[in-house]
Amino acid sequence: MARINDNYLKLKAGYLFPEIGRRVASFNQANPEGAQRLIRCGIGDVTEALPPACREAMHRAVDELGDRATFKGYGPEQGYAFLRDAIAKHDYTDRGVDVGADEIFVSDGSKCDTGNILDIFGPGNRIAITDPVYPVYVDTNVMIGNTGGADDSGAYAGLLYMPCTPENGFVPAIPTERADLIYLCYPNNPTGATATFSQLRDWVAYARSNDAIILYDAAYDAYIVEEGVPRSIFEIEGARECAIEFRSFSKTAGFTGVRCAYTVVPRNLKGRTADGTEQLIHPLWARRQTTKFNGVSYIVQKGAEAVFSPSGQSQVAALVEHYLGNAKLLREACQQRGLAVYGGINAPYIWVACPSGLGSWEFFDRMLQEINVVITPGAGFGAAGEGYFRISAFNSRDNAKEVCRRIVEELRL
Amino acid sequence: MARINDNYLKLKAGYLFPEIGRRVASFNQANPEGAQRLIRCGIGDVTEALPPACREAMHRAVDELGDRATFKGYGPEQGYAFLRDAIAKHDYTDRGVDVGADEIFVSDGSKCDTGNILDIFGPGNRIAITDPVYPVYVDTNVMIGNTGGADDSGAYAGLLYMPCTPENGFVPAIPTERADLIYLCYPNNPTGATATFSQLRDWVAYARSNDAIILYDAAYDAYIVEEGVPRSIFEIEGARECAIEFRSFSKTAGFTGVRCAYTVVPRNLKGRTADGTEQLIHPLWARRQTTKFNGVSYIVQKGAEAVFSPSGQSQVAALVEHYLGNAKLLREACQQRGLAVYGGINAPYIWVACPSGLGSWEFFDRMLQEINVVITPGAGFGAAGEGYFRISAFNSRDNAKEVCRRIVEELRL
Repeated sequence: MARINDNYLKLKAGYLFPEIGRRVASFNQANPEGAQRLIRCGIGDVTEALPPACREAMHRAVDELGDRATFKGYGPEQGYAFLRDAIAKHDYTDRGVDVGADEIFVSDGSKCDTGNILDIFGPGNRIAITDPVYPVYVDTNVMIGNTGGADDSGAYAGLLYMPCTPENGFVPAIPTERADLIYLCYPNNPTGATATFSQLRDWVAYARSNDAIILYDAAYDAYIVEEGVPRSIFEIEGARECAIEFRSFSKTAGFTGVRCAYTVVPRNLKGRTADGTEQLIHPLWARRQTTKFNGVSYIVQKGAEAVFSPSGQSQVAALVEHYLGNAKLLREACQQRGLAVYGGINAPYIWVACPSGLGSWEFFDRMLQEINVVITPGAGFGAAGEGYFRISAFNSRDNAKEVCRRIVEELRL
Repeated sequence: MARINDNYLKLKAGYLFPEIGRRVASFNQANPEGAQRLIRCGIGDVTEALPPACREAMHRAVDELGDRATFKGYGPEQGYAFLRDAIAKHDYTDRGVDVGADEIFVSDGSKCDTGNILDIFGPGNRIAITDPVYPVYVDTNVMIGNTGGADDSGAYAGLLYMPCTPENGFVPAIPTERADLIYLCYPNNPTGATATFSQLRDWVAYARSNDAIILYDAAYDAYIVEEGVPRSIFEIEGARECAIEFRSFSKTAGFTGVRCAYTVVPRNLKGRTADGTEQLIHPLWARRQTTKFNGVSYIVQKGAEAVFSPSGQSQVAALVEHYLGNAKLLREACQQRGLAVYGGINAPYIWVACPSGLGSWEFFDRMLQEINVVITPGAGFGAAGEGYFRISAFNSRDNAKEVCRRIVEELRL
């Protein structure tokens, strides 16, 4: 009798974005006219053309595969040295951050990595997550049995939720209780907040004093434009003893459909076995990846490498500048309507309080029906997201401007 | 205190292919001359150029990403409809096999899928695997806690090993005890054996009478050239009630470096919860994939779709014919030396009994040192593989011929 993983039955409803997809599809069917002018600012998905440097590199890679002399079969599961070296140099050592190429594991996405990382951690870990939060952190913990069931607000028993509010600048206070694995994401999805050096220092100190590990999601680091904002947890002294970092080419270089990301596991990072013995984490992740993964497409890795070329760097900078330009306009439009607005300065997301005490799915439906704009309801990111919505700045400038116009002229508040 | 998954510490030594890699690297360093003429018939990795149809499609896909009007961001996690439809049509319905596009989940590799599938199955399942076997099945079960520790032969407590020998044609006898999840792979890696309709019918009957699920790995189905050999478990009546099938573009179309595969989960396939309630498997896998995976690169999916075009089909057929031509030569060379040879007819692998009672790692080292040919030691695939070795037919014709020459002229038996 094949037994299923009963933890899956604890999962509430659909994963957020499929649920949004269902509501939009049903709206489109019922309102052909509204569907015509629908603008999507929901899922955080890039919209602009892939940088030419990446495309050129991928064309060359495809051609290489057409000649047996340069054909590539299975590559190293952790990624080709050309890409790991480029990442270590450009994203870390050139910025004075101590991360070696051997500590970088190239993958096909941060969603995979932040989910799969739990494979190497055992039962009995107390999980701390921010609220609101990227739903994947929560759902993958439910799936693996780190939680009990959900209550009516969608909160799962056993998780240590850390509310992020305007009062704490969307960076949670250090818990008064023990946590073993702590999910932090800055620039934050969904709130667009960033953490300060001082805040991250406090987190590193907390993690080290608890033998805890911080799972640091820096998928949006490229959007940090202000001085003095940390881009990597490894800019904090001591973080190499207590953190794993996830990064992605998705939002940096427009790779959401191309698929490439990476995870940094410091070579001396340790966890403990059931009997308390210290155990290096790096070989566990290496074993996980070599056993359950076969590396990222060679073509894609060549495309990712090109991000670090001089032309790639300037093309990527232009992309980021474009999206942040949208974010600025969207912030201003919401502010003009008197809404409380957060994020959108060092991040492609704007986090807005719903007007007149509306619930966030309620406001989602209103934005959809009334001004035909898809946003993401804050409640989809956790109980503390209720009463907020997220606008994504990933769009054309024309679309962003039109959304602003509709917010200013058409939205009834 | 971050607790690791202690199951990882049960894993024996390195995963097979990294271990081969280490031995070859150390040989190369010590023997620059031997390294010069080294020929790799070890890891089952394709060597010939990617079909032009696939390359052309990928070039077009890269160009599409360069225009915001045709840009693709996140795709459906389960794969684009164009590819799922093409797979359902060409690999199943055109062959009279009932599999729908909605039952196909496109992924970046069968290694990932055969490992990740365990996520949706709970503890308490009794696992039956053939011996010898693709090590990923075993190692992923160890990682997830479905086994105890390993004995000296490398066999893990708790697994139901089903020996595959020349006597049973490398298709295991139906167990006399209960199993819940059964791994079968035909054409088989590593033995190159195929199963008959009658044998698979027996397995389907066994699975159905035990409420068990067969995890059927058909990654090498394209190599079946003889009439009357089943290519899919779903050619067997009743299999839709008891089987999941894994297939890959890796060996079919030379995609080992490009990365694309798929898994078929019948929509009515059921498992049971801890309390014995029936539960559909398809939504569990859909939930797993939408939560922990973000789909395969659009570029790669377009390349995979092209496999099903008329030109793609003939190019792929030529590739398969090429590798099977190598297999024939290698079979004959081994037979000429009086070795007992299996497989290599409907499969790209030849399974050979080591001469004069040599152990398989011992013979691996001799082949490496003496004739500078890398093979795969049978013991790397399980205890019952001891005393055998696998030769991969993935090579150029010249290399295959040269390996044959060395086997015939240089190998001391």
